[in-house]
Amino acid sequence: METTHIEHIGIAVKNLDESIKFYEHTFGLKCYAVEIVKDQKVRTAFFELGQTKIELLESTEANGPISKFIEKRGEGIHHIAYAVKNIQSALIKLQSEGIQLIDNQPRKGAEGLEIAFLHPKSTFGVLTELCEKKENE
Amino acid sequence: METTHIEHIGIAVKNLDESIKFYEHTFGLKCYAVEIVKDQKVRTAFFELGQTKIELLESTEANGPISKFIEKRGEGIHHIAYAVKNIQSALIKLQSEGIQLIDNQPRKGAEGLEIAFLHPKSTFGVLTELCEKKENE
Repeated sequence: METTHIEHIGIAVKNLDESIKFYEHTFGLKCYAVEIVKDQKVRTAFFELGQTKIELLESTEANGPISKFIEKRGEGIHHIAYAVKNIQSALIKLQSEGIQLIDNQPRKGAEGLEIAFLHPKSTFGVLTELCEKKENE
Repeated sequence: METTHIEHIGIAVKNLDESIKFYEHTFGLKCYAVEIVKDQKVRTAFFELGQTKIELLESTEANGPISKFIEKRGEGIHHIAYAVKNIQSALIKLQSEGIQLIDNQPRKGAEGLEIAFLHPKSTFGVLTELCEKKENE
C-alpha cells in the first residue's frame, strides 16, 4: 500500500470544548474546524500541525464507539490515520494478505475524505484508518 | 510552547521483529534503525513517513514501562511525541500552568534527541513526549 504521511491522529475525549481549550492554550495549536460526523456518532475538532492533524473525538451518543472506548480504556489516543494514494486498491491488497477490515469499502469520513478502518486485531493492537483525499471532488 | 510537527508516534508491541515485518511488508514502510534505549528498558524500531516517524517499542525487561503498559492495556498506541523548538522553556511554561511533568528536566532519548514526558493525567489521557533536536551536537 502506498502511503505518503500520517493524515491524523484520533484522540478520544470526554469533553470536546475543554480539550480544545487545552490544545489551544497549552500546546499552542489552533482549532480550525469543529464537525459532527453522524455516521460515527462523534463531534470532532481539528488542529493542523505540519503534515498531520490532531482530531479530537467526543461521543454524541452514549452507545457510540468513542463512548465505549472511553468507558473501557479512559480518554486517550484512539487511532492513527494514514494518507494513502488509492484507498480502494489498498483495501484489496490488505484483504488479500488476510488483514481484517472493519470497512470493506471506503466511506465518507470527516473533512470529506474517503476512509476505511482496519481491525486492531490485524494490526498489532492499533486501530488504523486509511484516508484518501479525492482531489477532483 | 512552540511545536513544529509530530516527531513520532510510539507504539507498544510484544515482538519487535514480527511487528517490523508487518510494517514493512503490509504497510510498505522501511525500518531504518533499531536501537536499544537502556534507560527506558526498550528496544525500538523506527520508520519514517513524511515528517513523522513510527517508533515501535518492545520491552527488554519484564518490569519495564512498555511491559506494564501491554499487561494492562494490550499492544497499541503508547504515546505522541511533539517536536518543540526549545524543550527547556516548554517544560517551564507547562509547569507554570500546572501541567504534571514526568520529567522535570530534559534527558537523552532515542536518536540522540532531548526528550521529556508529560503525565497523561494532565493531558486528557494522552502520554505526551516533547522532543528537541540539538542541531549542533
